[in-house]
Amino acid sequence: MRFELSKEFLENLRIKIAEQDTSWIKVNILELHFADIAEILDKLSNEEAKYVYFQMDEDLQADVLMELEEDIRDRFLASLSSKEIADQLENLDSDDAADILGELPEEKIQEVIAQMEDDEAAEDIVDLLNYDEDTAGGLMQKEFLKARVDWPVNRCLVELRRQAEDVERVYTIYVVDELNKLVGFLSLKRLLFASPKTKIVDLYQDKNVISVKSSDSSEEVAKVMEKYDLLAVPVVDLQNKLVGRITYDDVVDVIKEEADKDFQLATGLSEKVESNASVWKISRARLPWLFIGMLGGILGAQVISGFETSITLVPALAFFIPLITAMGGNVGVQSSAIVVQSLAKGNNSTGGIGPKLLKEGIVAIVNGVLLSALIFGIAYMFENGTLGFVVSISLFTVIVFAAVFGTLIPLLLNKYKIDPALATGPFITTLNDVLGLFIYFTVGMLLYDL
Amino acid sequence: MRFELSKEFLENLRIKIAEQDTSWIKVNILELHFADIAEILDKLSNEEAKYVYFQMDEDLQADVLMELEEDIRDRFLASLSSKEIADQLENLDSDDAADILGELPEEKIQEVIAQMEDDEAAEDIVDLLNYDEDTAGGLMQKEFLKARVDWPVNRCLVELRRQAEDVERVYTIYVVDELNKLVGFLSLKRLLFASPKTKIVDLYQDKNVISVKSSDSSEEVAKVMEKYDLLAVPVVDLQNKLVGRITYDDVVDVIKEEADKDFQLATGLSEKVESNASVWKISRARLPWLFIGMLGGILGAQVISGFETSITLVPALAFFIPLITAMGGNVGVQSSAIVVQSLAKGNNSTGGIGPKLLKEGIVAIVNGVLLSALIFGIAYMFENGTLGFVVSISLFTVIVFAAVFGTLIPLLLNKYKIDPALATGPFITTLNDVLGLFIYFTVGMLLYDL
Repeated sequence: MRFELSKEFLENLRIKIAEQDTSWIKVNILELHFADIAEILDKLSNEEAKYVYFQMDEDLQADVLMELEEDIRDRFLASLSSKEIADQLENLDSDDAADILGELPEEKIQEVIAQMEDDEAAEDIVDLLNYDEDTAGGLMQKEFLKARVDWPVNRCLVELRRQAEDVERVYTIYVVDELNKLVGFLSLKRLLFASPKTKIVDLYQDKNVISVKSSDSSEEVAKVMEKYDLLAVPVVDLQNKLVGRITYDDVVDVIKEEADKDFQLATGLSEKVESNASVWKISRARLPWLFIGMLGGILGAQVISGFETSITLVPALAFFIPLITAMGGNVGVQSSAIVVQSLAKGNNSTGGIGPKLLKEGIVAIVNGVLLSALIFGIAYMFENGTLGFVVSISLFTVIVFAAVFGTLIPLLLNKYKIDPALATGPFITTLNDVLGLFIYFTVGMLLYDL
Repeated sequence: MRFELSKEFLENLRIKIAEQDTSWIKVNILELHFADIAEILDKLSNEEAKYVYFQMDEDLQADVLMELEEDIRDRFLASLSSKEIADQLENLDSDDAADILGELPEEKIQEVIAQMEDDEAAEDIVDLLNYDEDTAGGLMQKEFLKARVDWPVNRCLVELRRQAEDVERVYTIYVVDELNKLVGFLSLKRLLFASPKTKIVDLYQDKNVISVKSSDSSEEVAKVMEKYDLLAVPVVDLQNKLVGRITYDDVVDVIKEEADKDFQLATGLSEKVESNASVWKISRARLPWLFIGMLGGILGAQVISGFETSITLVPALAFFIPLITAMGGNVGVQSSAIVVQSLAKGNNSTGGIGPKLLKEGIVAIVNGVLLSALIFGIAYMFENGTLGFVVSISLFTVIVFAAVFGTLIPLLLNKYKIDPALATGPFITTLNDVLGLFIYFTVGMLLYDL
């Protein structure tokens, strides 16, 4: 039932495009779901994609355009004239049109807007461009259904039918008063099964009217929509006047970007980079973290060089350097990851830093005791008894310190409104490396009496 | 407009519960949004929560119950009798009821089902319990609207009104033939604006009917719903008969769990553990990864001990051990994270392992050259010129090897159907530590001519 893109299909399509076989394309491509068509166009050259794209009707074009991968879409639009772009924008929802327009250079934006024929649509888009893209205003669209609280059902149906032409997915109808202030909701289901003369005022729901302000951050919007299980949320201005709505698909993107960002920070990637980006772009995205790691390595070298005499006298001390640094890093990342996840879920309302630190401390002591006991026996096999003591005592200390820092740092970052996920990556590993080496060699110097 | 839970509010509520002040609770709690009520109950003791819960009407109870945190809900349900649980289940959607029931012990399940009064609901739940919870069958619910393709609009409205009593959110109406086989969709909007005598057959959409099989995995369901931007997807059996539907909120959970899992593997947490779990549970979840890290440290010690003479002769070689291991780890994690992300997005359809490896190799060479040049100068300051050569040559080699392994391992894991995210965590760091040390000391031995 579902379409699966194969290499053979793609090769065949390329031949048909080269042959300009429009009837084959009509039957085999244009009848597919728009998501499948977008998947196909993503794999074609720009010229090939353009050929197929301009065989489609307007509605299909709009759906396909928004499903293309971002890089591919940017490249595709760059190859169109201002007039062609303007035509495409008129078929899109206002939020999508504004997003696409916002990606273009300043003078191109003005050219495209000047070429738009639908003045109302152009005005909506220009209005949306005023909002910061990371706010509710930047996410919202101008297409939604609204009903006046004083209308009867039959008038409402007439008005909504007109409004519905522009609205692809309705979700819920917003109810406003004569000043356009949001007063409540009306579900399609209720409207569908109501008698024609009932007034909206007797039908709508005015309890728990959840809305967001246009200046709210997109994270805030995502939190509200998640918490209240909303498919769409109305956006109001400072006077509570209804100015737009945000649908769940735009917010899913925000949520996914948040999750991706945490993963990227934890794994040391500083920018969002597609795997098909250029070598130089990829290298640049990774260098900052590698540089931090290298700085840590240099500091580590500094610490060890301070203990050069110890190593000269007991070279076996060098054996367990990687163990100490690896364990400090691992424990630190685990502790900070737990804190980051719990902060991301918004579990910071109750309980201060104290109880969290205490708990992480106890977990670290439990794990520290177990692992130190184990390493004592193993280190003993490498050298005499003293090395065993040095490694296990310092491993225990490093584990406890790493857990404490791993917990503390993201909590502190969060307190000062810095993304706590920063702490899960190379930062914490580097810090713990340096600290761990210092502890290890100090313990070694003391126990070996150097 | 939106409710914010404060400590003062909570303390006041506790007093009102102790005083059994039902009228205060009615006005100040029961009028809130169910998500806010659930947030409040999450913070109360079990007895307090129970008191508030049983002041609510059935519908509100059902909404609140599903919004409670899982741990809290399990604890809450454990304190109810079988009859009380049965009453709660009858108000829930069938998928939620089955999920909750599935968490109970076997004999309790039977007790609860025996106590249910609504036989049809009980039957639906028992049916759903048969499916594996990680499949479409385990995610689906029995509540949805369906219309026969041969009905006229007015009959359809009568039938749907009856069906709609059980369905909280409609999304779309599924159209079936006389054998209950899925043939298409009908949007509420179209039905709303159609004339009463039109037949469904002239109104419904039979193109691109996307459905999932009840045996499809939940990841597969999530992929389909994401790709096709679906709010709900119908579930069919092997004969294409409509058996249920899955709504986007259930799939958002699947998507979030996937993202969380990747983050947890990357940061070395082997089990999903809530931050309020017991110390012992948390310790156990972290030990496996720490153990792998320790094993790596021991292997590292083994490698270094093989070069004991080199260290005795040139103790400065030990200085850069942490730098080599840190860089190997960081580069490896970055490369594997990129691959994991690209695999998670399903970008594995085109291009084999070769091009990816080549690209990562080139990125590694670019970063390797830059960082090696930098470290040469710094190492030179620590000791004579030879150390600079040793560190920079081995750093370069380690970076390239780490990138290659970091790319190769997740791709190989994926090929053998093992979760590639396994590779981003302590695994790759440990492997690269050992390899890096070996390279470093071998280069050192050669250049120092030891």
